Amino acid sequence: MKSNFKIETLGECTVSSPISSVCFVEDSQNVRYDAVVTDGKNCSEGELLELAGPRKKIFFNPEKTKAAIVTCGGLCPGLNDVIRGLVMVLWYMYGVKEILGIRYGYQGLTFSSEDKPVKLSPEVVEDINTQGGTILGSSRGDQSPVEIADFLVKNGINILFTIGGDGTQRGALKIAEEIKKRGEKIAVIGIPKTIDNDIAFTERTFGFETAIEMSRLPVICAHKEAKGAKNGIGLVKLMGRDSGFIAANATMATSDVNLILVPEVDFRLENVMKYLEWRMLNKSHAVIVVAEGAGQNYVKDSGTDASGNKLHGDIGLFLKDKIKDYFRGKNIPVSIKYIDPSYTIRSSEANANDSVFCFQLAENAVHAAMTGRTAMVISLWNNHFVNIPVQKSVEYRKKIDPNGLFWQSVLNNTGQPEMK
Amino acid sequence: MKSNFKIETLGECTVSSPISSVCFVEDSQNVRYDAVVTDGKNCSEGELLELAGPRKKIFFNPEKTKAAIVTCGGLCPGLNDVIRGLVMVLWYMYGVKEILGIRYGYQGLTFSSEDKPVKLSPEVVEDINTQGGTILGSSRGDQSPVEIADFLVKNGINILFTIGGDGTQRGALKIAEEIKKRGEKIAVIGIPKTIDNDIAFTERTFGFETAIEMSRLPVICAHKEAKGAKNGIGLVKLMGRDSGFIAANATMATSDVNLILVPEVDFRLENVMKYLEWRMLNKSHAVIVVAEGAGQNYVKDSGTDASGNKLHGDIGLFLKDKIKDYFRGKNIPVSIKYIDPSYTIRSSEANANDSVFCFQLAENAVHAAMTGRTAMVISLWNNHFVNIPVQKSVEYRKKIDPNGLFWQSVLNNTGQPEMK
Amino acid sequence: MKSNFKIETLGECTVSSPISSVCFVEDSQNVRYDAVVTDGKNCSEGELLELAGPRKKIFFNPEKTKAAIVTCGGLCPGLNDVIRGLVMVLWYMYGVKEILGIRYGYQGLTFSSEDKPVKLSPEVVEDINTQGGTILGSSRGDQSPVEIADFLVKNGINILFTIGGDGTQRGALKIAEEIKKRGEKIAVIGIPKTIDNDIAFTERTFGFETAIEMSRLPVICAHKEAKGAKNGIGLVKLMGRDSGFIAANATMATSDVNLILVPEVDFRLENVMKYLEWRMLNKSHAVIVVAEGAGQNYVKDSGTDASGNKLHGDIGLFLKDKIKDYFRGKNIPVSIKYIDPSYTIRSSEANANDSVFCFQLAENAVHAAMTGRTAMVISLWNNHFVNIPVQKSVEYRKKIDPNGLFWQSVLNNTGQPEMK
Amino acid sequence: MKSNFKIETLGECTVSSPISSVCFVEDSQNVRYDAVVTDGKNCSEGELLELAGPRKKIFFNPEKTKAAIVTCGGLCPGLNDVIRGLVMVLWYMYGVKEILGIRYGYQGLTFSSEDKPVKLSPEVVEDINTQGGTILGSSRGDQSPVEIADFLVKNGINILFTIGGDGTQRGALKIAEEIKKRGEKIAVIGIPKTIDNDIAFTERTFGFETAIEMSRLPVICAHKEAKGAKNGIGLVKLMGRDSGFIAANATMATSDVNLILVPEVDFRLENVMKYLEWRMLNKSHAVIVVAEGAGQNYVKDSGTDASGNKLHGDIGLFLKDKIKDYFRGKNIPVSIKYIDPSYTIRSSEANANDSVFCFQLAENAVHAAMTGRTAMVISLWNNHFVNIPVQKSVEYRKKIDPNGLFWQSVLNNTGQPEMK
Repeated sequence: MKSNFKIETLGECTVSSPISSVCFVEDSQNVRYDAVVTDGKNCSEGELLELAGPRKKIFFNPEKTKAAIVTCGGLCPGLNDVIRGLVMVLWYMYGVKEILGIRYGYQGLTFSSEDKPVKLSPEVVEDINTQGGTILGSSRGDQSPVEIADFLVKNGINILFTIGGDGTQRGALKIAEEIKKRGEKIAVIGIPKTIDNDIAFTERTFGFETAIEMSRLPVICAHKEAKGAKNGIGLVKLMGRDSGFIAANATMATSDVNLILVPEVDFRLENVMKYLEWRMLNKSHAVIVVAEGAGQNYVKDSGTDASGNKLHGDIGLFLKDKIKDYFRGKNIPVSIKYIDPSYTIRSSEANANDSVFCFQLAENAVHAAMTGRTAMVISLWNNHFVNIPVQKSVEYRKKIDPNGLFWQSVLNNTGQPEMK
Repeated sequence: MKSNFKIETLGECTVSSPISSVCFVEDSQNVRYDAVVTDGKNCSEGELLELAGPRKKIFFNPEKTKAAIVTCGGLCPGLNDVIRGLVMVLWYMYGVKEILGIRYGYQGLTFSSEDKPVKLSPEVVEDINTQGGTILGSSRGDQSPVEIADFLVKNGINILFTIGGDGTQRGALKIAEEIKKRGEKIAVIGIPKTIDNDIAFTERTFGFETAIEMSRLPVICAHKEAKGAKNGIGLVKLMGRDSGFIAANATMATSDVNLILVPEVDFRLENVMKYLEWRMLNKSHAVIVVAEGAGQNYVKDSGTDASGNKLHGDIGLFLKDKIKDYFRGKNIPVSIKYIDPSYTIRSSEANANDSVFCFQLAENAVHAAMTGRTAMVISLWNNHFVNIPVQKSVEYRKKIDPNGLFWQSVLNNTGQPEMK
Repeated sequence: MKSNFKIETLGECTVSSPISSVCFVEDSQNVRYDAVVTDGKNCSEGELLELAGPRKKIFFNPEKTKAAIVTCGGLCPGLNDVIRGLVMVLWYMYGVKEILGIRYGYQGLTFSSEDKPVKLSPEVVEDINTQGGTILGSSRGDQSPVEIADFLVKNGINILFTIGGDGTQRGALKIAEEIKKRGEKIAVIGIPKTIDNDIAFTERTFGFETAIEMSRLPVICAHKEAKGAKNGIGLVKLMGRDSGFIAANATMATSDVNLILVPEVDFRLENVMKYLEWRMLNKSHAVIVVAEGAGQNYVKDSGTDASGNKLHGDIGLFLKDKIKDYFRGKNIPVSIKYIDPSYTIRSSEANANDSVFCFQLAENAVHAAMTGRTAMVISLWNNHFVNIPVQKSVEYRKKIDPNGLFWQSVLNNTGQPEMK
Repeated sequence: MKSNFKIETLGECTVSSPISSVCFVEDSQNVRYDAVVTDGKNCSEGELLELAGPRKKIFFNPEKTKAAIVTCGGLCPGLNDVIRGLVMVLWYMYGVKEILGIRYGYQGLTFSSEDKPVKLSPEVVEDINTQGGTILGSSRGDQSPVEIADFLVKNGINILFTIGGDGTQRGALKIAEEIKKRGEKIAVIGIPKTIDNDIAFTERTFGFETAIEMSRLPVICAHKEAKGAKNGIGLVKLMGRDSGFIAANATMATSDVNLILVPEVDFRLENVMKYLEWRMLNKSHAVIVVAEGAGQNYVKDSGTDASGNKLHGDIGLFLKDKIKDYFRGKNIPVSIKYIDPSYTIRSSEANANDSVFCFQLAENAVHAAMTGRTAMVISLWNNHFVNIPVQKSVEYRKKIDPNGLFWQSVLNNTGQPEMK
């Protein structure tokens, strides 16, 4: 049985780990890809993922190692937790004392940037985890991998931690390839960041649970507004460009939602209206949650952002207008309240469970980096931290399976009929 | 010295109060209107407001009294606290056991309404204070005072509590006048509700402090977004149709805001842009808070709502677009993030201090009603609860004084220059 | 490969499921027990757990089915979420309209109880999820399984949902065995409840994540107190009778803790004192988190509670006194602040993620019950909901592995030395 | 009419204020002490308090001024807000750039302290308001006013801001007197700090509203615990050494409390027990809130702390034991849950309204200091900020009037009978 998930390394580990661990991981330890079996079969075909964690032998000599941390793309709860975790583990566990914080994403890894890297230490990062945002700043968009490689070499950086989404990790891959071509010994380790929880081969991303927590309030408010007026309709637009995980979980977290629309499941507008009409006549109120990427066939495309993400037409405002028109046409007075919490979700501080997760991600990222692993990301699989080749993590975006048990739970929660 | 704030009553109080109070208020107790004196003068000219509270003698016989509660206009934190307080005090202190909850505002006081009044009791209102919204529902708009008076008489209602804004209290005044004309003994007692804290002759309205609390998060988020990107601009639109109190307090509560715009103070767009440009070049970020009623000369009027409130053009979106255009014209790349928390502020549950305040308002409203006072509202003045004639409370809307110490504090907090 | 985790059933499923599911589970679908493999081995020896979820055929005719819900033991965040989920899924998905809420735990299933079962319906359970506690009340202690079986039969109850810890589930097992002996067709389905997350064969229990969230504040406060005074020591006692999971996660969630003590890892008091002395002299402050079950060799046993749980001596107060004495002896002035959040953790409402989890547990419990499964609990394993025989779930209590990666992460976070 | 509240000054104000204010205060502006009048009388006898705020002329030349800030006594929400406000207003409004932070209270103003003053600037205090505690550290206890005066002179400090309770302000008075004796031109300005809101001549102190907010949760939890078990009794001990304001407001903020005990109102234990017994038999549950200073005749005195505050016997644990004994004696099984939130209340961050208040206190303290006022504190009276001689503020401790309207509201809320 051979793993298809082999991790690249910079070379043999010959340095004894300075950390006093109760438990080191052996390279022979793996995590199964597939935990479900049917009729006892397909057991032997399962792919294996490398278990993350501290190794007895490491590649880099901590005293001579310089690390850099960069945060890219949109804000996400937990960014500062990850930065802090990386600094604390590098500094106290491995004794790496040269740590640079790169300003404003990949821009800060170019020679033309006005904003030079800042020195990071335990004092600098103290208490930053109690704040949302990123103390380093971020930006969208790629920069030349050649220039970044030059920058890393010129600045004597041995390890680059890239905290960002699939665009960022694609960039990290190019950087790692450029470094490999040159034969440099620089490790590039990614920590996947997607508030939508839609990166491949990881069952959870940091900030996602916080996003569910923060999305609960707007849904509760929409419910209060809907019941506060005769024929009240509360409409909430939540994040979810390509995947409806936040919308689905916020829905189940409140049990107040009567209709959820996600990118993974098409709907016909007339069916939405018929159902709403039924609710007005029978229940006098309705709560709708729509993920931003839902129903994009109804709204015109708005190009792409600097990261190459498709910019969506505004399905929330579209629905609001359509619902208004529909009930005006039917001469049924309704009171529609539209809530778009937007940036308040993503710029919040991490909740407790995400803070724990961020620390563990950071820890395992440092373990991987110190052993000279590269071109990989840290991920969670079957509840174990694993090392995943970066190209795997950008292979596709995780989505809700419209024929799976999870979506069934969501439908059971809302009680909504078929909308296709 | 004669009070100009005389409260109307239905007749002489001849019933002994059933409540066992450690402290009854005498009718001769008053609260000064004006607490500030200059050169020791204008002391004797001060107007006096009637101190609210329990009286030894009351007008209504509790066992034969039927009360009704109606909530009107937009949601506001604390509505359920006030409803619960009224029920608890009527029921347990005075022994009034017939209490009706009117559905969906003044509509529910008409014969044509499908939604009949519901019976309220301590069991029904238990725990409702932990929820935002109003369990009774609300609506905007007037109904015929003649029909409402008919409805009250036909249903044997002796006391009507009207929880609502100045529109609602104007309606209450008309109802009280119609009742007076008929010589009916029905008390109409208002509890002023304005999340903007802009009702005249009260220094605080319920829900306002909660609104400040709830407005703090979006401002903090805007700050994190602004600092999370190079030349980031966080723009937050907060409530405040005619008065900027929420915006001003949310600004001081965070100390993160660099520019605040309120309805009371005009601004010139070019000055806003110049200041923002200065901040981009010198500070690389800016946070702006704009009250919804600010800069209405720049946005086109959008008519009025069912309550007769002017509907404002959207100054938030207007500013967002203008800022984008300006910096595009200047070829300065900026990253602007717009946050409109909208209904999430007003449909939240009351914070602790507002809950206390709501209970005290409810209590004093019941005290006033049971003595046969009418056509009045409960208000807070110089930290004392007072009875105010309803016509006084709708005389004007309270505003920030642009030449006063409060606005000066706000300006000191933001450090913004003159924008006129 | 045969499963050792076979679930008992009441008989063949012959009724077509009334639910319109996008996805039914086949009985042949299982979840592996072990997700980690070493050297590619021990794959085929893995035990298999039955995948939970809706089946096409069910055992009970919904129209003739009467269900009962009982909550036992201490409060836990999410109890009301589970109750509500059970009622909603029974009522709306399966059409079961006879649902009883048993008052005050197993006591309410006895004939001598004054508190008769209450009827549950969607109206009754609306919004109960926004409140901590349990609307049914709870109690500790066993009751005669014979009497309970009599009670169930006499009241025509077909399904009993037992929400409680290992004591409760042991009781449920006895009830199921008594029912089996009589040949009655009554399903007993458990939903494991342990705020400490220490029930066997489930990787998560409801309320646990909320407990971490709620435990974060006291730790942060202890940190502020510790730094707010010269030689400040903040000492927090957190829940964890036999397992330190809450303490460990609250520690990592704050990264403010310098010393954590858990039941799974022994410590020597003199080593604790030496380390604290070192911190006072070098860092001027320290934060200590101690799980209630830690260091029980130092405090005298206090008997057992009504559920048979060992009552622990108070290690928090013990440590507080010992630290005071130690530094008084050393003539080093310290300022020690002791925080015991106690019941505030367990009586809180569930956070968003726990609410989602509670709904899914409830849903799967109903699915299992309707197919006539019995003597089992719903559990989460490798991220899938599974059915586990109740005797398995009470086999042992889950503990932190002192030689595992999780405990290593905790130690990395605190930086504490060996305490043995 | 002459004020009895005359403020001392260091000399004539001859420097033009550098601040560009929309509004300066004249020295002739005052706030009445008494806002309530009876029969129109006692108007002319009212004492006048000096209105706080910016003056056109100031005493100190900002460029040559050095300020110091010290925080003393126990933690209180908002300490960091006040520190930050002082620094921001000194720096940006007046141009004072030499600001020292004194470490660990008055200890840091002695020559023997190891912890030297730290330089404060806008960068240092950025975001500190989002954290509870005090970045400066604090301590209890007096230091020699002679040594402190020496320290101030030697370090060239012109203004000392003392943030602390009545003990601290008594110390500040002695320092100011020592300075006056020497003829030095050093202003001593106090910002009163008491989480209990019991300082004389101010109607509100910072942190108090936050304390109410933070005390609400334990009371709600006690309620859930009380209702979660048959004959459940939830007992919460809240802060309030001499005054029951926190307990009273937390009670009204929840409306869940059945019995409140405060220091201002004596009670007989047997009456408490009789009432509890009645509740067990009739309502099956009870919630009790007890302020720490209540019923001190029942618990033995425990000496005084370093600040000279009387240390109270633990009335909470006393009541818990007595209740247990009582019901054991009556053979009524009860389930009593005791909650002591202790330090979690006082080390929390300020809520929004307190943050606003802290900024305004800081601002007015700087205004007062720059005009050479001394031996005074900033206070709020009839909603206006006023300057109060420090000896007035320590004259007595504010208490709940057991014969006043406020206490009556509290009793109305709990419905408790007479306990004397």
